[in-house]
Parts: sequence; C-alpha cells; structure tokens
Amino acid sequence: MEDKFVEGGVCAARGYKANGVHCGLAHKVIAASNSGDETLKANLNPNAGKKNDLAAVFSEKRAAAAAVYTSNKVKGAPLIVTKRNIADGYAQAIICNSVNANTCNADGEEKAEKMCVLLADKLGIDKNDVIVASTGVIGQVLPIEPIEKGIAPLCEGLSETGNTEAVRAIMTTDTVEKECAVRFSLSGKECTLGGMLKGSGMICPNMATNLTFLTTDADISPDMLRKALSDVIQRTLNCVSVDGDMSTNDMCCVMANGAAGNPRIESENEDYGIFRAELEKVLRVLARKMAKDGEGATKLIECTVSSAPDFDTAKIVGKSVIMSNLFKAAIFGEDANVGRILCAIGYSAADVDIGKIDVDMASEAGRISVCRQGACLDFSEELAAKILRCDEIQVLISLNAGDSEATAWGCDLTYEYVKINGDYRS
Amino acid sequence: MEDKFVEGGVCAARGYKANGVHCGLAHKVIAASNSGDETLKANLNPNAGKKNDLAAVFSEKRAAAAAVYTSNKVKGAPLIVTKRNIADGYAQAIICNSVNANTCNADGEEKAEKMCVLLADKLGIDKNDVIVASTGVIGQVLPIEPIEKGIAPLCEGLSETGNTEAVRAIMTTDTVEKECAVRFSLSGKECTLGGMLKGSGMICPNMATNLTFLTTDADISPDMLRKALSDVIQRTLNCVSVDGDMSTNDMCCVMANGAAGNPRIESENEDYGIFRAELEKVLRVLARKMAKDGEGATKLIECTVSSAPDFDTAKIVGKSVIMSNLFKAAIFGEDANVGRILCAIGYSAADVDIGKIDVDMASEAGRISVCRQGACLDFSEELAAKILRCDEIQVLISLNAGDSEATAWGCDLTYEYVKINGDYRS
Repeated sequence: MEDKFVEGGVCAARGYKANGVHCGLAHKVIAASNSGDETLKANLNPNAGKKNDLAAVFSEKRAAAAAVYTSNKVKGAPLIVTKRNIADGYAQAIICNSVNANTCNADGEEKAEKMCVLLADKLGIDKNDVIVASTGVIGQVLPIEPIEKGIAPLCEGLSETGNTEAVRAIMTTDTVEKECAVRFSLSGKECTLGGMLKGSGMICPNMATNLTFLTTDADISPDMLRKALSDVIQRTLNCVSVDGDMSTNDMCCVMANGAAGNPRIESENEDYGIFRAELEKVLRVLARKMAKDGEGATKLIECTVSSAPDFDTAKIVGKSVIMSNLFKAAIFGEDANVGRILCAIGYSAADVDIGKIDVDMASEAGRISVCRQGACLDFSEELAAKILRCDEIQVLISLNAGDSEATAWGCDLTYEYVKINGDYRS
Repeated sequence: MEDKFVEGGVCAARGYKANGVHCGLAHKVIAASNSGDETLKANLNPNAGKKNDLAAVFSEKRAAAAAVYTSNKVKGAPLIVTKRNIADGYAQAIICNSVNANTCNADGEEKAEKMCVLLADKLGIDKNDVIVASTGVIGQVLPIEPIEKGIAPLCEGLSETGNTEAVRAIMTTDTVEKECAVRFSLSGKECTLGGMLKGSGMICPNMATNLTFLTTDADISPDMLRKALSDVIQRTLNCVSVDGDMSTNDMCCVMANGAAGNPRIESENEDYGIFRAELEKVLRVLARKMAKDGEGATKLIECTVSSAPDFDTAKIVGKSVIMSNLFKAAIFGEDANVGRILCAIGYSAADVDIGKIDVDMASEAGRISVCRQGACLDFSEELAAKILRCDEIQVLISLNAGDSEATAWGCDLTYEYVKINGDYRS
C-alpha cells in the first residue's frame, strides 16, 4: 500500500477522540484600554468570539508516549509536569489550554497538576497518564475555575471527529488550523499517524516547537517512539523560525496506542524505518504550515541549502538566512536583496567558504540565479520581481562543498507582525 | 582639569580637517519602479536631495592608527584594503562613501584601492596611509567615476569645521548625525578625542559596528591605541543591536596624531588609563545614539544587567533581551511584557539561575518592579504604562549572582523598520 495523506488530524488514527470548548480563560486586559485599536482588541480578546480555549485528546487504550521540549532555561510549568508524567513511557490523554501559558508563576506546577487531576477524574484514568500543556501570555496567574467548569463539557463532547474543535482550542495568534495525517502500512497492517500544531509567534524551536500533538495507532515501544521523534525533530520543527524567539512552552508529543495491530516495533527494523519516514513527513508538513502562518506573514520562505559538508552546516546556514530581519523585510517588499542573504550566511556560525557559494531564488513563477561563487550577478530585476510576487518563495543555496542538505522555513517580516506583538498581552 | 564634552566631532582634536560632498553615487533603481510608494522612493534616492555621499578626514601629521572589523565571514572589500594599509600602525587620511557597500563584487578590492590612490594623489600622501570604507547596498558594482569627479571638491573643501559635512556623507538610513567629542588632560597637556558614527540598520556588531571614525591629538603608540580600542569596543559598540543583522562592512577606526604634545603613551601607565576611559566614554555615547536612531525606532531600550558572575554573562543576557523581536515589538506597543524578558533570558546562551532573577523597568517617569526571583509580579499597569510612554526605557535586571555588570542598547521594532527595509535597495 502506498502511503497517502488523509483528513482527521489528531483523530485520524484509530482509538482516539478529541474535543475543544470555550471555558472562558481571559487575558488580563491592560494595554487595550490604553490603545485606541478596537479591531485589535476584538481580535485578541478570546471572549469576543467565544473562541475555544481548552482542548483534550483521549486514547481508548493507554499509549506509548514520547515528547521533546523547549531548550529555553525558562520552562513552562506544564512541561515539567508532563515530563514527570510520561517518564514511564506511557500516557492516555492530553489537556491543553490557550490564552495563558502558566509560566513564570509561583503556583504554576500546582495548577498544571490540578489540570491533570481534573481530566483524569472525569475520564477515569490515572492522573500520571496525562500530558498537560498551556500556551498564551507568560507571567499571569492561571485561573483554575474556568477549567474546572469546562472539564465536564470538554470530556462529554469527546468524539472521533472532534479534531477541529481541539485544534481551534489550542490556537493563539494562529490564523489557520494546522493539521496533517498520513495512512501507511506496517507489515501489512494499515496504520495512521496524524496531529495538530499551534504556533505563529515566539517561534524558533530548538528542541520542539510551540505545541504539537501527534497520535498514531501504530504499535511501537516507548524507546523506539522517543528515538524516532528525537531524530526527525531536528529536520522538521527545529528548522522553523518565525521571529527568533524561542518559547518557554514549546513541546511536541506523540502517543502510539497500538490499535492498528501491527507487530510491535522494538528495534530499528524495516517497519521502524517506515514509521520514522512517515513521522518526518507529517512534521514537515506541519512545520511548513507553521512558517506560512507566522505572525503577520504574507509569504513563506523556504531555504534549501545543498552541497553542504554535513547536515548541521546546511541547517545553520538555512536558519541564519530565514531568521535575518533584513532579509525577511526585503521579502515582504518583494526585493531580491541577495546581499542580505550573503550577509546572513557570513555571520552564521557555519564554517563556509563564501567564495564558493551559489544562490538562486525561485517560486512557481520561475527561477533565477542571483549569485555565483560569492559574487552577486546582474540578474533580470523584472523576472526577480515576478518570482517574488508569489506567496511561497524558495531560496536555493549551494555551498559546493559536499553532499548534505537541509531545509529551513520562515516567513516575511511585516507591519502586521509588529502590530500583533505590540499589543498581544491585552 | 575635569574632562568635558565638546563640539566638533571628528574635527574636535587638533590637526584634523574633514569634508563631505555629493558626488552622485546612485542606487541602481529597481523595486522602486514596481512600488507605488513615492515618498519612500524620494526618501531613499540620494539624488533626490543631493545628499552628501563621499567623506574625507585628513590629519596634518601622519597618525598612529588602529581599527576593529566585523567578524562576518563576508567582509567588504574596503575592510581588506584598510587592514593592509594600517598593518604598519599608521594612517593619515580616511575616505568613505555611502550608497554602495562595495561588497560581494568581483572587482571590490581594485575599486577600494583606487579610492585610496585618488585621495592620496590629491592630498600628496602615501596611498598606503589611507583608511577606506564604504556603506550601502551590498552586491552592486561600485561606479568609480562619480568618486573620481568628486575627489577634487572633496579635498579642496577640507576644513577644521568640516565634521558636519563629513558625518552627513557617511549616513545611509540614519536620521540624525551622530558625533561626540571629549576634552581631557594627559600629564598636564590638553587632549581631545572625537568622532562620528553611522549606523541605523544591519546593526549587531560583534567586533566593531557599522562605521565609526575617531580622531585624537593625544600621542599614543599604535600598539597601545590598538589595545585601548579592542578593550573598550566590547563594552560599547559590541553591546548594541538594532536588528541582529551583523554587517559585512562594520569597522571602527581611530587615528592619533600626537598634536597635543603629551608624553607619548607607550605602556599601561596612568595616562593610558585616562585615555582608555575617555575612549570608552565617547564610544558609549555614540553606541547609545546609534541604538536610539535604529531604523524606524521610536524608543531607546537600555538594558543593564547587574549582579552577574562576570561581564560576559551580563552582556549575553542584556543583548538577548534587547534583540528579542517580541520584546522590541512590546516596547513599541508600550506593553510591560515581562514574560518576554524572562523568555529571552532563558534562551540566551548565558548560564543563569532563572529563579534568582529580579527585573525592574524604568524611565524618567519612574521605576517599577515587575519580577522577583523569576516570578512575575502583579504590578501597577497604570504606572507601567506611564513609564513606557517615554522614549528612553531602562530594563534593569539583577541576576543576584555576583558583582559584574553590562549594559546593552537596542530599540523598539516598528512598522517603519519594516517599511524602510522592505524597499531599501531601490
């Protein structure tokens, strides 16, 4: 069986239910009262549209579980609790709120533990089998009452088609729901792996990225699940940057409940290779979606660095380019400013020979060479302008120094980014 | 004699003349023709207002000279030529153009050499005694004809009051002239040290910063001059960031012609200590001016990190905070978003104990505590808003882990930054 993309996100695999509700977590309203911008106030106040703010995912069977976390030294309290809960390699449910990050609060862990207890009691599972996550404003005490009130409707509404309600509940400044799922076969058994992701600002993962929840019905041991996740994260979510700001709450976790009935993966066998590749495929799609929905973004920037001596060099170069504010602003202005690309390569930590570098830019409108052997070319500005008018821009860099390759994803820097982040807390 | 600030910039010290002219270097006009923004086109086209684009500084006596350069692996051709020319520790004149960076061009060094020859011939000095610099667009061939044409009026107009014409000629997106000079005494002799700086975008020095030219009439050996410059650069220009983009053309150079007649400084004696302190004072003022005039900036952010185990830790923490796009946008929005400060400290490379950190914010309107021992406080939003309404904002971080301190300077992230950089090349 050929693998294929399917619908259903976090509910695509067998044995999972999800839901999302509006429980009424609200920002402490401050700056908005000083700001004249009514549209912004309306957009950012979750009560305005009764946006979902509490999500749950439930696996009928206890599932192998693995997660990767932000490498920020400031870690959200939910990450600490989750890490403790899945230390044994298993979990059965996820609870996640938006609006408030429950981070840098004196009572953070206590509140995160309480969220686990509330969910576990209602679902009749062990509180230590709960993955807990929060996203939103840092440094404001999380009110637990709305969650207490919301837990009943949240659990009662769990369903096999609840993925959309769930993904909406974890969104903050995201403008689109980000889901992906694939179906593939392991030793003749049909398996499914799917998930959802939120993340739009404060995005510069260095371990995982904002919040990503994956579910699969494949049978795989906790050790092998952890290994697969750690491997692919480096080539997917860790290659995304929206603004260079690494969140305190980044987490990517995956549950595998074995409902597909495939022979359990316990070593790096052929099935492991297939599973790992499918996991990478899903995370790559989600990574790209995240970059394209970067705060205020109008264009996706996809930078592929090839002919590199090794993967790390390629990744460092690619990330340096997509993270340059100057280059990001140039892409917003549809300006083929190759000097800024070379400049960003030059100040990256990668050991490269600038004199060997070739750069092309491309989109669905065409492809143009802008630099050869480190010297800028006198290219057609007309064609360049046509290429940059599209909303997905490729930057193709060849280091001419080896066989390795990496892709990094980012977005342009726009007025809207500044607007969103000038007044987010309100 | 008490030291004091004086006027005159690069001409404040005895024995120096300067000038700036409009020689007609023009951007290759591209994107502007595609853009409907006429104001922007007019602002960025140097021909529109006949802005000065070529500067020279001349010392009557051959002077000791020292410089520090960008650590970007892509280095502008002028830097390479300058480094060669002052390898012997001496120089007598500076030539600098704006509009075109003469970087990433196949004929860059040849053109930079040509600029030295043109100036040296006209002034009757050795071409190897010329410091050459360029700033502007990367990757466009530098037309030498306008410089050939401009060299006569440039040299003929050199004067002891030419500092203003000179500083205007080196500006690109700068909106104010940045000059500073101090007068002090060395062993009873009155000495003066002054200079000019340009830099507004692509500012994240890691060695020197954009272009800084200093002149002094103090007598100091090339070795001691180099030592003083290398020392203070770490505490001044290298603590500034506007956008995290480290330029390919950053250079800070100083000439010391000995016209003051003080006993020549040849060791780390008391006079050396005074000279070094005055040099730091001038560069600190210029660093602050640069940050405040960051592209599109409406507010200066001055982040002082105290009680650090060492200077480097303090500097890393301070720079991480002033470089955070999210925090910069929050300051633009006058939002006391302490979570973003802690987040930026957390992802910095500094080894700090988050649980010990205290943070205050201040301005001329007052001071407010926003975080104690790593936990956000429930502070008065009214007072915070009042503080953030000012145009110079202090962030005061105590690591409670030692006696060292560092200050980093940055600015807010605004719509205007995006606008300026979305269309700079045109």
